[in-house]
Amino acid sequence: MNTGTAAGQSPLALICGAGSLPLAVADYVAARGRPVLLFPLQGIARPEDYANRPHTWVRLVEFGAFARVARAAGCRELVMIGSLVRPSFWQVRFDLTTLMLLPRIAAAFRGGDDHILSSGVKLIEEQGFRVLGAHEVAPEILVPEGPLTRAQPSEGDRADIALGLDYLRATGPFDVGQAVVVTGKHVQAVEAAEGTDEMLKRIAELRASGRIRTPVGSGVLVKAPKRGQDLRFDMPSIGPRTVEGIVHAGLAGIAVVAGSTIVAEPSQLIAAADRANIFVIGTPAGNDP
Amino acid sequence: MNTGTAAGQSPLALICGAGSLPLAVADYVAARGRPVLLFPLQGIARPEDYANRPHTWVRLVEFGAFARVARAAGCRELVMIGSLVRPSFWQVRFDLTTLMLLPRIAAAFRGGDDHILSSGVKLIEEQGFRVLGAHEVAPEILVPEGPLTRAQPSEGDRADIALGLDYLRATGPFDVGQAVVVTGKHVQAVEAAEGTDEMLKRIAELRASGRIRTPVGSGVLVKAPKRGQDLRFDMPSIGPRTVEGIVHAGLAGIAVVAGSTIVAEPSQLIAAADRANIFVIGTPAGNDP
Repeated sequence: MNTGTAAGQSPLALICGAGSLPLAVADYVAARGRPVLLFPLQGIARPEDYANRPHTWVRLVEFGAFARVARAAGCRELVMIGSLVRPSFWQVRFDLTTLMLLPRIAAAFRGGDDHILSSGVKLIEEQGFRVLGAHEVAPEILVPEGPLTRAQPSEGDRADIALGLDYLRATGPFDVGQAVVVTGKHVQAVEAAEGTDEMLKRIAELRASGRIRTPVGSGVLVKAPKRGQDLRFDMPSIGPRTVEGIVHAGLAGIAVVAGSTIVAEPSQLIAAADRANIFVIGTPAGNDP
Repeated sequence: MNTGTAAGQSPLALICGAGSLPLAVADYVAARGRPVLLFPLQGIARPEDYANRPHTWVRLVEFGAFARVARAAGCRELVMIGSLVRPSFWQVRFDLTTLMLLPRIAAAFRGGDDHILSSGVKLIEEQGFRVLGAHEVAPEILVPEGPLTRAQPSEGDRADIALGLDYLRATGPFDVGQAVVVTGKHVQAVEAAEGTDEMLKRIAELRASGRIRTPVGSGVLVKAPKRGQDLRFDMPSIGPRTVEGIVHAGLAGIAVVAGSTIVAEPSQLIAAADRANIFVIGTPAGNDP
């Protein structure tokens, strides 16, 4: 775990996508005594979240503008965090640096291609910045080992979790999804390009049409990082919306790999899960694919 | 390939689900000189398809009734073929034999559980019948090696096919889907409980929302039997509807494993594929997971 050694005293540039996770990361880093510069992404981060904090708006496609401000402030390390909605291309004004970097940066932000992703990081690092994972500067955002919730997995759920982890381990080399739904010891859905929320919707539909027959309140969403995944950019994450998806899908809970999964808004997530009697558990990293 | 050796001269009982495949199988078997008894499934097979042929309607849940007629006619072997829509349980009247067999038979028909499936076959065989695969009595329904269509896979398509087969090989032990969609060397969708048609719809949606960026007209549906799959019951199959799904999903073609994939309505499938410039290819069985 690197919490900023070599460039530890330089301010940290935090490029902020949507959601409250970037602000939580900023607070954790600031609590360690390190100055943080916030760069919320225009059209992606919500202005009201940043109203009371010093910040500089940037566009996803104006890397040059960001780089000038960040360099002037003495930043040598940056973290990108928060969810992204891909901007429409006609809403975008390019600057010269970005024009060159854009295709690879955009792809990196969306994830799903480890090769393009690491190229994107390399390009940013060629601009003189070191890219860190949010968890490296704020390990508090990681899911710890053990249950986060009052509810705990049953024996059957534990068997489903083990099967899901086995499946994700087997498909690790393929740079595909990071999640499966397992009920009654059957893999019922595999995430690929559609993402976790869409996969959970599918489970709800399959239940509604009677094609999944295991009882409502059984079955597990299992998430794990892909093998060789660049965790600085593309770590599996869960949040309150994941719990909502679990409830609609009629599943018993969520299992993620402890220490390599980000939890966004942990208190809301736990409250929502406890209300719905859903378990959320961090499995030992030894089971990490 | 067993085309009926020991009981070869006994009439073949053909339990017919929906579609034209059962009739094609009946014709191929009859052309070999073996008598065929047709047992279309009530509420599943279309009455007009059987109007001009001797037949006995049966219900999925009246195995005892079927067994009496088939035994009286000297049948010792049976084949189940055609697609099934699961009957609503309140539309069903049970007989005693079926009441005992029903849960396992129904599960076997739906597929997706190799263990239950083989138990279903075992139970039917305990009733004195030998269960054969349709391809064993009518090998003509299998996809041969090589392209069936005018269109052929490009170099890129061939790379996608190879990746898809690798993925299916890796997940073979998990009793999950038999199909993936690969575009631009990325697995974009993995079939599990939802089935191939639903997976292709998802690809169409992902394309529409810009989340799959490879050009329309590239990418491949790859299907393969699961390892250890009981091919008598649950062989991968393609038909004209698959081609329709491919067109909507903007893919270039379909690759299946030669000799272990059934093609329903081959002439319609090929005509539809040729109209849309879609390729359909049987890959060598050596690549079979």
